[in-house]
Amino acid sequence: MSSITQRAPLAEKAAEKLNKKVSHPETIVKDPTPRMELQKESPKLATLDEAIRRSGLKDGMTISFHHHFRGGDKVVNLVVGRLAEMGFKDLHLAASSLSDVHAPLIKHIENGVITRISTSGLRGQLADRISRGLMQEPVIFRSHGGRGSAIASGDLHIDVAFLGASSSDPLGNACGYSRSENAKSICGSLGYALPDAQYADKVVVLTDDLVAYPNTPCSISERQVDYVVEIDSVGDSSKISSGAIRDSKNPRDILLAQKAAKVIINSGYFKDGFSIQTGTGGASLAAVKYIRQSMIDRGIKASFALGGITAHMVKLHEEGLIERLIDVQSFDKVAAESLKTDMMHKEVSANEYASADEPGSAVHYLDIVILSALEVDVNFNVNVLVGSDGIIRGAIGGHPDTAADSALSIIVCPLLRGRIPCVVDEVTTLITPGSSVDVIVTEYGIAVNPRRPELAERLRAAGLDVTEITALRDKALSVIGTPAPLPFGDRVVGVVMNRDGNVLDVIRNIAD
Amino acid sequence: MSSITQRAPLAEKAAEKLNKKVSHPETIVKDPTPRMELQKESPKLATLDEAIRRSGLKDGMTISFHHHFRGGDKVVNLVVGRLAEMGFKDLHLAASSLSDVHAPLIKHIENGVITRISTSGLRGQLADRISRGLMQEPVIFRSHGGRGSAIASGDLHIDVAFLGASSSDPLGNACGYSRSENAKSICGSLGYALPDAQYADKVVVLTDDLVAYPNTPCSISERQVDYVVEIDSVGDSSKISSGAIRDSKNPRDILLAQKAAKVIINSGYFKDGFSIQTGTGGASLAAVKYIRQSMIDRGIKASFALGGITAHMVKLHEEGLIERLIDVQSFDKVAAESLKTDMMHKEVSANEYASADEPGSAVHYLDIVILSALEVDVNFNVNVLVGSDGIIRGAIGGHPDTAADSALSIIVCPLLRGRIPCVVDEVTTLITPGSSVDVIVTEYGIAVNPRRPELAERLRAAGLDVTEITALRDKALSVIGTPAPLPFGDRVVGVVMNRDGNVLDVIRNIAD
Repeated sequence: MSSITQRAPLAEKAAEKLNKKVSHPETIVKDPTPRMELQKESPKLATLDEAIRRSGLKDGMTISFHHHFRGGDKVVNLVVGRLAEMGFKDLHLAASSLSDVHAPLIKHIENGVITRISTSGLRGQLADRISRGLMQEPVIFRSHGGRGSAIASGDLHIDVAFLGASSSDPLGNACGYSRSENAKSICGSLGYALPDAQYADKVVVLTDDLVAYPNTPCSISERQVDYVVEIDSVGDSSKISSGAIRDSKNPRDILLAQKAAKVIINSGYFKDGFSIQTGTGGASLAAVKYIRQSMIDRGIKASFALGGITAHMVKLHEEGLIERLIDVQSFDKVAAESLKTDMMHKEVSANEYASADEPGSAVHYLDIVILSALEVDVNFNVNVLVGSDGIIRGAIGGHPDTAADSALSIIVCPLLRGRIPCVVDEVTTLITPGSSVDVIVTEYGIAVNPRRPELAERLRAAGLDVTEITALRDKALSVIGTPAPLPFGDRVVGVVMNRDGNVLDVIRNIAD
Repeated sequence: MSSITQRAPLAEKAAEKLNKKVSHPETIVKDPTPRMELQKESPKLATLDEAIRRSGLKDGMTISFHHHFRGGDKVVNLVVGRLAEMGFKDLHLAASSLSDVHAPLIKHIENGVITRISTSGLRGQLADRISRGLMQEPVIFRSHGGRGSAIASGDLHIDVAFLGASSSDPLGNACGYSRSENAKSICGSLGYALPDAQYADKVVVLTDDLVAYPNTPCSISERQVDYVVEIDSVGDSSKISSGAIRDSKNPRDILLAQKAAKVIINSGYFKDGFSIQTGTGGASLAAVKYIRQSMIDRGIKASFALGGITAHMVKLHEEGLIERLIDVQSFDKVAAESLKTDMMHKEVSANEYASADEPGSAVHYLDIVILSALEVDVNFNVNVLVGSDGIIRGAIGGHPDTAADSALSIIVCPLLRGRIPCVVDEVTTLITPGSSVDVIVTEYGIAVNPRRPELAERLRAAGLDVTEITALRDKALSVIGTPAPLPFGDRVVGVVMNRDGNVLDVIRNIAD
């Protein structure tokens, strides 16, 4: 008689009390297969078609993507193309951002495969067509922190996430780099994909390098992954640092960067242990280069650099001038490689980075952010999304998140871009409210928000050319003349959400 | 007129459609405080009393603790002592395990402060008193994987978790080591605390080294932490590798370890890419030492070592013989230091380690586990919890989890301990069912579960002394004689849960 049977009576009494059954463990069947073999039979491994079918995706549902490969992304077009072939309709595409490379979406919109889009930004042909009224439903624009919050709160519910990864094991441990000999791609941090991995009903990891378990350390945990799909290529890594995050050689950008560095150094926040972030745009990215010497001269170290991490920051980190890199998005391959090899280079999710709902999110502990702008206005409002021609050509990114939560937000912006004034009476589209913006740096002078008189005082005392924002506006208009009003139509083609989940502004169609 | 007011009508229309309000971002108030200062005012910082009060803890609720400091733990006694002084009653103490050092709980049980306990194990005076009927309610024993599953499923709901950490920043980014100059303690992995951090209603981190934000990389994320409490000491690191996980010099342990190594080498699973875990107990911990040379000779590398990570494993890892260390618990200071400094030494939660409910948990991809036993019986059942005197003196740990899910489970066990037979007709308490156990290694011979004839064949072919389990039992009894039946009473003092959440066995009181 087995020992289990013998002790059944007392166990039954205990089980009854605990509302449990008595186990019959003699029925355990062990699998004797060597685990290097067993993992090849992982039930999560699937073709793209199988993963789509098993995910339960239906017409009308929401699919999501990340944009860590930026202009090199290959996942959105592949998956949406396949969904179109499979006959799906009326899908809501919720990407962390979209760019030039996603022009093929135009035909899927025309065919009714995609009827709604949520994103941080739009560029190129797709942006142009949407600005002119391609879609019936307005595009919903959110900041990176706002998207994280919306996903966490359920405002943005994702049915199926399709997340590209540079490596994954058969269980779904996945990341934006690979340690195998067959590595095909690298994008570094998968920070914007992490809310999707955590909250989506179903998560499909697509990878171009299926590696042996355990693929650790990794970004996305197997615990969050339902299907793993091997594909030829998830992205072209050479295009990570393209567009708005390429390293600028433009002399005006360098001038602006040097001026921003002077603002930082004399702001009162340039102290041992300070923290810093640089947003997209050549001038803002480069600013960190020009504070390096002052850090060395004064013995100042930064506790962390945040956000889009760049080769500039990696260099300062490796020199010991920045203790930690907190990386929601690797802005170039140097940064991506550093994330792979350096323990002090830490990946964070969009929520850990910039959620307004989480008191601990990193932006709350950020001293200084340097950001760019398409337009600023006399109320210090900033537009980074819609061009002065009324066409969408940018992305919100973390702009309003970091501006609002940092101690000091600095906008670097030329007074003019060609024949276009960048300091205006009123921004075309409101993205970052003036109440979040402290300093505007132009090549013709520095304007300080009247809410921060102590800052203006410090910068003036340091001999910087502090002026009035209206003087900058006047200067711009004196060169260009007042621009003609934009030919906006009455349709709303885009809605800009505030990071609190409410409506901040709308974008109207441009009439041809 | 502000731009916001101007665009209100269209924004209102959009907001109405989206069921949102229109934001009024001009009300954003920026905090100009330098962030090194601001973090000192983190609303999470509290005294222990404040944290307890603000947590909403009430009589009858469940509090939880981890046991990563093992015999050196100082958190359980401190917190429960304070709860007693504050007048709390009828609390359920859910620890990942308890040991000798927790004898002060006896008085809190006598006084009605603690009325229920859930744990993996009990030792020392506390175990002795409970075995004799100290508590009205039986102690609930779960395996580490079973506890993780029970917490995830809600079977074990934690109201307030009190989690000791060797460092934390004011936001609650916490871990089992510190990088600061003021480091006071180190325990390495906080794997058993991670389910608590994830699922408890309120999480209190207690630390003896409050460091500047951001304390990354870390184990517990700020996202999961409600309060951070600075205390003098969370634990005595010198006692991490005490008790069941000290490095054995006992010649019989070494003999058993060498024999287990031969079983591994000849099992059919000793192939490039294999994975291995060693449980507590001198012989099982040491086994990995004796496969090293064969790995070198045959050019075999392990893909990972799992579980309680030891200095032996760190050595093989650093030699390139083990690619990854997957660490749910650092068994000594060498392992803890390695976790701190080596990216390929990865911390995992109890669920990622051994949950039966998660197909990806690491034990499912484990080839070989070497475990110890207090008793094994002729049905290959194993007892690691209750001594042959009927007194609780051990812990379930990951024993049933790893035995069930590995491809090959090896139990190392002396035939006799003093006058006590370790191979018996029927185990005193059923912890790991015989259906999970493949091989039993004793100094008098090796028994192979009849379910695994191919294994027996391989070991015999290698010249190992394979024998019948009944022959081992007979040998033990021939030396000792049949032991007298234990003086069990009728009360149930412990309930052993299976990893599936059902009742596996009960432990009755020992009558004095």
